Amino acid sequence: MAVTAFLTTCLRGAGQVMFQNNPVTGALILAAVLWGAFASGEPAVGVGALVGLVVGTAAAYLLAVDGTTLRQGMYGFSPLLTGVALPTFLGNRPSTWILLVVGAAVTTVVTLAIGNVFTTWNVPALTFPFVLTTWILTLAAYQFYRVAVGSLPAPALPAALGPDAARFGVDAGALVTAVLKGVSQVFLIGDWVSGLLILVALAVNSRWAAGIAAAASLVATLVAIGLGADATTIGEGLWAYSAVLTAVALGCVFYRPSARVLLYALLGTVFTVLVQAALDTVAAPYGVPTFTAAFVFATWLFLLPKRDLVPTPHHEPVPDGVLTTSKGAT
Amino acid sequence: MAVTAFLTTCLRGAGQVMFQNNPVTGALILAAVLWGAFASGEPAVGVGALVGLVVGTAAAYLLAVDGTTLRQGMYGFSPLLTGVALPTFLGNRPSTWILLVVGAAVTTVVTLAIGNVFTTWNVPALTFPFVLTTWILTLAAYQFYRVAVGSLPAPALPAALGPDAARFGVDAGALVTAVLKGVSQVFLIGDWVSGLLILVALAVNSRWAAGIAAAASLVATLVAIGLGADATTIGEGLWAYSAVLTAVALGCVFYRPSARVLLYALLGTVFTVLVQAALDTVAAPYGVPTFTAAFVFATWLFLLPKRDLVPTPHHEPVPDGVLTTSKGAT
Amino acid sequence: MAVTAFLTTCLRGAGQVMFQNNPVTGALILAAVLWGAFASGEPAVGVGALVGLVVGTAAAYLLAVDGTTLRQGMYGFSPLLTGVALPTFLGNRPSTWILLVVGAAVTTVVTLAIGNVFTTWNVPALTFPFVLTTWILTLAAYQFYRVAVGSLPAPALPAALGPDAARFGVDAGALVTAVLKGVSQVFLIGDWVSGLLILVALAVNSRWAAGIAAAASLVATLVAIGLGADATTIGEGLWAYSAVLTAVALGCVFYRPSARVLLYALLGTVFTVLVQAALDTVAAPYGVPTFTAAFVFATWLFLLPKRDLVPTPHHEPVPDGVLTTSKGAT
Repeated sequence: MAVTAFLTTCLRGAGQVMFQNNPVTGALILAAVLWGAFASGEPAVGVGALVGLVVGTAAAYLLAVDGTTLRQGMYGFSPLLTGVALPTFLGNRPSTWILLVVGAAVTTVVTLAIGNVFTTWNVPALTFPFVLTTWILTLAAYQFYRVAVGSLPAPALPAALGPDAARFGVDAGALVTAVLKGVSQVFLIGDWVSGLLILVALAVNSRWAAGIAAAASLVATLVAIGLGADATTIGEGLWAYSAVLTAVALGCVFYRPSARVLLYALLGTVFTVLVQAALDTVAAPYGVPTFTAAFVFATWLFLLPKRDLVPTPHHEPVPDGVLTTSKGAT
Repeated sequence: MAVTAFLTTCLRGAGQVMFQNNPVTGALILAAVLWGAFASGEPAVGVGALVGLVVGTAAAYLLAVDGTTLRQGMYGFSPLLTGVALPTFLGNRPSTWILLVVGAAVTTVVTLAIGNVFTTWNVPALTFPFVLTTWILTLAAYQFYRVAVGSLPAPALPAALGPDAARFGVDAGALVTAVLKGVSQVFLIGDWVSGLLILVALAVNSRWAAGIAAAASLVATLVAIGLGADATTIGEGLWAYSAVLTAVALGCVFYRPSARVLLYALLGTVFTVLVQAALDTVAAPYGVPTFTAAFVFATWLFLLPKRDLVPTPHHEPVPDGVLTTSKGAT
Repeated sequence: MAVTAFLTTCLRGAGQVMFQNNPVTGALILAAVLWGAFASGEPAVGVGALVGLVVGTAAAYLLAVDGTTLRQGMYGFSPLLTGVALPTFLGNRPSTWILLVVGAAVTTVVTLAIGNVFTTWNVPALTFPFVLTTWILTLAAYQFYRVAVGSLPAPALPAALGPDAARFGVDAGALVTAVLKGVSQVFLIGDWVSGLLILVALAVNSRWAAGIAAAASLVATLVAIGLGADATTIGEGLWAYSAVLTAVALGCVFYRPSARVLLYALLGTVFTVLVQAALDTVAAPYGVPTFTAAFVFATWLFLLPKRDLVPTPHHEPVPDGVLTTSKGAT
C-alpha cells in the first residue's frame, strides 16, 4: 500500500516536469526518457532519472513536507532532471553517483526553499531547483580531480556567430525532426521518438498541453532560424525545449486558454528564445549548460504581472488574470 | 482626445527617466535625446527612443494596467531607454527594429513583474526593467548571425588599469564638459548640449532635482579622477550618469531634502561610482555595457533600509525615513 | 559610560561573526585575528579589522538603527570582515584605507537593506553584507590605477583540476593543522594558533558551537580530500571555513540540536563544500575571492524550508522546525 502510494507519487512527479498531475502521463514520460537513454547508448542517463526521482521524493518524505503537494509529485520532477543531467555531463563514474544522490536530496531542500521565497508572489518555483542544484554540481566539478568534466562544454569567452555560419536547411523532414527533438530536450534528450512519446503522454492528460507544446516547439525553431542561430543546435531541438515549457505554463496551466492568453503566451515563447540565447552567452565562460533556466526566468517574468491572484503553487490552471480587467465567469 | 491623453502619457514617460512627472520636462528631454542622436550622426537612436516609448506605453494600455500609474508615465521610461540602447549597440538594421519592438513590449511586462516583486519592500523597480531586457537582447545578439554585435564591447577578461594609464587633464573646460556629458549619458548620449538641455528640463519641474543632478555629476567625476579611472571614459561622462540618478533618487525623490539626507545621498553617490566600476569588471567577459545597473543596485541598497515606510511606487517624494527615528511634521 | 557601551557592542560584534552574542568571545576572536595578522607579517590586516568594526558600528549609531540589535553586535561583524579583507587583497596603501572606511559604512547600510529583504522569510542576512560590499570594492579595484590588485587572483577562465593534481598527504599532523586553519579562515587567516583560539572563544559561550565548528572543519576537509580538491588549498583550510559557519548556523543556532538536525546540518555542510567549489569556478574570470558566499548561499537554502517559523533575526537558536512535524516541548 505505502509502496503503491510512493510509486504513484513518483510517476506523478515524472508528469509534473510538464505540469501534468497524472501517473499515466508520468509513466509514458519515463518510458520516453528510458528510450532516449538506451537508444543513444547511455543507459546510465535513464538509471539516473529513476534514482533522482526516487531519492528526491524519498527526501521529501523524510523532511515530512505537506502531504498534498507531495502526493501531486511536486518534489519529484526537479530531482528527476538532476538525475538525468549528472550522468549526461559528468559521465558514468563513482563520483557521479555520489553527487547524484546528494544532489537529488539537496534538490528537494532547494525546492522547499525556492518555493517558500516565491510563494510571496504566488509564483511557483518551476524547475529552478533542478537548474540551481545542477549548476552548482557541474560548476563544482571543475575543482575536483575525481569528477570528470569531459562532457561539459569547454569554458570560453562568448564568440559572435558570424555571417558565414552554416544555415539550417529548411525542409519538412528536418523541421519535424527538430520540433520533436525540441520536445524531448526538456529531458536533455535529443531523440524524435522520445519527443513524439512525450506529446502522447501530454495528450493523455490534456490535449491543450500537447497542442501548445508542439506549436511552441515549431514557433521557437522558426524564430531561431529567422534570427540566424547555429544550424546544428537548431536541428538538435536546443532552441525549442525551454520555449515548450514556457508556452505550456503560460498558455494552459497558469492562465486559462483564450485568444488574448495565447497572444501573451506567444510573446513569452518568442522572448524565451532570446533569454535562451542570452544565457548561452552568459554561461560560455563557465563551461556549463543553461538547462531549463530560460524557461524559468521568462516564465517568472510573464507570471509575476498577474493581478487576479489565485494561489497556484501546485501547477493548477488559473483564470486569465493578466489580460482582462474583469474576470470572466468561472 | 484619447490621442492627446496617450501623447501626454508618453511625454510624462520621458520625464520619468529622471523621476519627473511633467510633460514639459519630458518634451525637453526628448528634444535633448533627438539633438544628441542627430548631432552624432545617429538619427536611428532618436527614432528608437520614440518607438520604444510609444510601443512600451501602448503595451501597458493593452495589458490594461492600473490607470493612474499608466498616466504618470511609469510604463514609458524603461522602454524609451531600451529603444535608445538597441540602435546604439546593434546598429540600424532590420533585426534591430524587430528586437526593439518585441523588446519594448517585453520591457513593459518586465516592469510589471519587477514592480510586483519590489513592492514587497516598498521600493520601486527604477530602470531595472530596461537594464534587464536590454542585457538579454544584447547578450542574445552573440548567438544570431542576423544580429550584429559590432558596436558592443568585445568580450574579454577584466584587465587592471595600470599605473601608466592616461591621466585626465583637469581644467575647467574639460571638467564642465565631462559633467554635462555625465548628465546626458543617462540616455546613453555623450553630448554636453544635451546634458545642459536635460538640466533645464529638470529645473522646469524641480530646481532641487536639477541642482542635485549637476552636483552629483561633478562629485562622481571627481571621485573617478581621484581613484584614477581611465581618462577617456571620465571625459565622456561615463562615470557620472548612474551617480546622477542615484543622487536625484536619494536626495530629493524618495527622501525629503535635509542636511542628513544630503549626506546619506552623498555616500550613495560615491558608492555608485564603485558599483559602476565593479559592474564594468563583471560585464567585461560578456561584451555588454552595464547601462544604468549601478544606479539601480546602489539605489535599491540605499532605499531598502528606510523604516518609516510610505508607499512610494510612483516616484513621489517621501518624508525622510532613514535618518531620523521620529518623523518630522509632514 | 557611553564609551563602555560602544566598546561592548564592538566586542559582541566580533563574536557575532561566529553567531556568539558574548563580549568575551568577541575579545578572544579579536585576539585571534590580531595574532594571525602579526604572525603573518601583515599587521595592517589586524588594524583593518578594528577600523572596520568601529566604523561599521558607528555608522549604525549614526543611522539610529534599532537599539537592541545594535547592542547585540549585529552591525559589527560584517564591517569587521570587510576591514580584514581589504588590506589582505588590496595591500596597505592610502586608497585601501579610504575604501575601507567608505566600505565599512556602506556595509552597515547593506546590512540594513539585506536584512529588510530577508526578514520577509524570517531568514537572517548572515555575512552577505560583507560579501556583497567586498565583492564590489575588489571588483572595482580593476578599474582604478590608484588601487592595487596585486594580491587578488588573476582573472582566468576556469580550468578543470586534472588527474595529475598533487594529492593531499593525509597524516594526523597535516589534518589537524588543516582543520584548525579551516576555523581561522572564517576571518581570512590561515594560522592554526588563531583557529585554536577561535575554538576556545566559541567554547566560552557554547560548547556545542565549538564542537560543531571543529567537527564541520574535519568533515569539509575530508569531503574535499575525497572528491580530490587541490592539495594546497586543502592544507590552508580553504575548503572548510564556509562549512564551519554553515554547520554552526544549522546545527546549533537556528535549529535546536537533535539527531535529525545534526543529520540535516551534515547534509548542509557537505553541500557547502560543493557550493564553495562552484563559486570558485564562477569567480575565476573576475579575479576575486568568494569570501564566505558559499556559507551564505548554502545556509539560506537550508534555512528557508523551515516551517515552524519563529522570528530569528538576531542569531538566537530556534526550535527544530524543519525536521519534525510537531514541535517538541519548548
